[in-house]
Amino acid sequence: MSVESAITEMAKAASAASIEMARCSSAKKNEVLLRLADKIEANASHIKAENEKDIIFAKEKSLSNAMIDRLTVKDATIKSMADGLREVAQLEDPVGAMSKTWKRPNSLEVSRMRIPLGVIGIIYESRPNVTIDAAGLCFKAGNAVILRGGSEALNSNQALAGIVSDALRETGLPEKAVQVVSVRDREAVNVLLSQEEYVDLIIPRGGEGLIRFVVENSKIPVLKHYKGVCHVYVDEGADLEMAKEICYNSKVQRPGVCNAMETMLVHKSEAEKFLPEIAKQFSEADVELRGCPETCRILPDIKTAEEADWPAEYVDLILAVKVVQDMDDALGHIAKYGSSHTESIVTSDYERARRFLREADSSVVLVNASTRFNDGGELGLGAEIGISTSKLHAFGPMGLEELTTTKFVVFGDGQVRN
Amino acid sequence: MSVESAITEMAKAASAASIEMARCSSAKKNEVLLRLADKIEANASHIKAENEKDIIFAKEKSLSNAMIDRLTVKDATIKSMADGLREVAQLEDPVGAMSKTWKRPNSLEVSRMRIPLGVIGIIYESRPNVTIDAAGLCFKAGNAVILRGGSEALNSNQALAGIVSDALRETGLPEKAVQVVSVRDREAVNVLLSQEEYVDLIIPRGGEGLIRFVVENSKIPVLKHYKGVCHVYVDEGADLEMAKEICYNSKVQRPGVCNAMETMLVHKSEAEKFLPEIAKQFSEADVELRGCPETCRILPDIKTAEEADWPAEYVDLILAVKVVQDMDDALGHIAKYGSSHTESIVTSDYERARRFLREADSSVVLVNASTRFNDGGELGLGAEIGISTSKLHAFGPMGLEELTTTKFVVFGDGQVRN
Repeated sequence: MSVESAITEMAKAASAASIEMARCSSAKKNEVLLRLADKIEANASHIKAENEKDIIFAKEKSLSNAMIDRLTVKDATIKSMADGLREVAQLEDPVGAMSKTWKRPNSLEVSRMRIPLGVIGIIYESRPNVTIDAAGLCFKAGNAVILRGGSEALNSNQALAGIVSDALRETGLPEKAVQVVSVRDREAVNVLLSQEEYVDLIIPRGGEGLIRFVVENSKIPVLKHYKGVCHVYVDEGADLEMAKEICYNSKVQRPGVCNAMETMLVHKSEAEKFLPEIAKQFSEADVELRGCPETCRILPDIKTAEEADWPAEYVDLILAVKVVQDMDDALGHIAKYGSSHTESIVTSDYERARRFLREADSSVVLVNASTRFNDGGELGLGAEIGISTSKLHAFGPMGLEELTTTKFVVFGDGQVRN
Repeated sequence: MSVESAITEMAKAASAASIEMARCSSAKKNEVLLRLADKIEANASHIKAENEKDIIFAKEKSLSNAMIDRLTVKDATIKSMADGLREVAQLEDPVGAMSKTWKRPNSLEVSRMRIPLGVIGIIYESRPNVTIDAAGLCFKAGNAVILRGGSEALNSNQALAGIVSDALRETGLPEKAVQVVSVRDREAVNVLLSQEEYVDLIIPRGGEGLIRFVVENSKIPVLKHYKGVCHVYVDEGADLEMAKEICYNSKVQRPGVCNAMETMLVHKSEAEKFLPEIAKQFSEADVELRGCPETCRILPDIKTAEEADWPAEYVDLILAVKVVQDMDDALGHIAKYGSSHTESIVTSDYERARRFLREADSSVVLVNASTRFNDGGELGLGAEIGISTSKLHAFGPMGLEELTTTKFVVFGDGQVRN
């Protein structure tokens, strides 16, 4: 079978399965999730053996250590996949919930009912655990899923796919509700991205290159984020002890993730006092600072920031620092260089707190808290499938509800239009 | 200036204006809308004179009468544009509304704030009134707008654009908040569809050809519907008098629109009684029926439906009719041939009403009411910019709220992540 017809068949089968999935009870869905969690633990050695094949192949192809690390399924990976599924089983099922019902002058009663999106395609790179994490969330929200992982993880993903199929079959649900693309050919991605008749949403997970490729080639709506260039703004009159804790946490607690701070903005009236103190803390944590001229005047030992530093997502122990004139300057910098991901202000001023919340145009805006809280779990959504920095459908962390949509339901007793 | 740089400049300017628009008070936005309504009425003769140039050109190019009709700005068109703007001014401004606030175990308080989408591009065909109707709604929701109408309406649209600019300038808002593309070259559309850095949403309005072109070429998210193949299902045991009124209204009250019924499904146990009665009513209204074999057995004078009739959107006084075995058969037919637009059931049975509401996978599902109620105004959303039949972001009629999104706002007092 050609790549085109293989993928088209999968998309058609997913679309058919999605009808059954939409009707599926929460109890049944949770049964699959819990059964799958148990099976993953029970089949740990099989999964790791298949994963070993991928690792050997990756080493033969001289992939980087970082890539091989992401590819490797450890005991902790197994446990995290199983635990993740059990957590998702605990989450409230959004499907079928109805909003308040309003009544029209002609006595029609109108409401909105939450329903699954239908078929979701996930395109990702080397981490095999995405197969389980993403499938679990999409499935719980009542969707059928097509997963296309990196070709370097093919054996691992196939092993996981087999276990998922078993769990579905044993529970009496359609096996095509979760499918893993086994075609190595990259053409498979292009074909999947053109199945707009059958697939409702594409979620790419991986580096910026993959995401841009998906956006440029998809006829199907895509939820994605390119990068997180997150700012903390230390306002005039801020509690500087609090500011130090928040800036330090935002940068150092986990520098390799998208919600870590990449640029710190400091009001000019606090810079002389604040910068030397926080610089000392950062220096102890091996954070390299790159400053604007005013920052470098106050901290003469640090590197001067270049234009390329302001929009940079370092994802590393590097931080750009800028002294700003006022709130306008701070918001202007964020508007120019930010990525609509996460911004935080440290302030004691009521009016400026309100203004920052309103005007910082990012998916999560915080007052007096670390940028690291932009996370579905931390914000109370439960597990998340990612963070959207585009505004359509979902903006910010996406949990179960963001994997659904609503339709209008209307209760009448014979109404017609005049 | 090349088409590419002209459109890119517009997109950049719109993006800059959208920042100011997002901060704009409801009072200021309403002032612009009301001023614009007055100006359109005051400048009616200028608008009609410019429109006349388009009409002369259209006649020279031998465009169809239907196209020339859509292109023509009559006194009623002027009034409807002005009244529409005054209605939009009355609608509640969704921007800035916050959802309930929830509290996390670490005392962070989290809420969602409604915000504009940013920059919306509207691509439409010959009706110049779309320029005003679409701009008014997008503007009220706090967005900047770029409008690209059909080249055959260029003079009309430019006249309207000038009036909009005046209204914005006189109110002290950025003129670039509403821009009309004046480039005739079709390349302008392609360039606009590639401005993903500056434009957040594209809404195409027009025929299926235009919409498919936009979906295939856009790098920006698109909200659209292709067509409305709407069904009414007359259930076993339905109140047949009610069924007749609803079916008649759904087909005849305004056959040329997307929420008119295109296929009627009748349970086999009601067909012998119901079909001859409704056929008489339809015949008096000059509705042509095309039936399945069983329908044709009961109504021997009508045409036999072909396969092409079931997915057809006639937008005319033609109706496909099918006798179904049961609810499964009806839902199966809708799933196979429907367009996710509007479905209605006429029933007296509680359980089947519930099942139909849950399982008919369309943007609006009704019990005992005409399909013609799939409309933003009728469902209580106020004016609408269109009906979405794709599930991302909005599914069903799109009012002001659907032209916005939400961001997370987080209130802390020094929280950091462990």
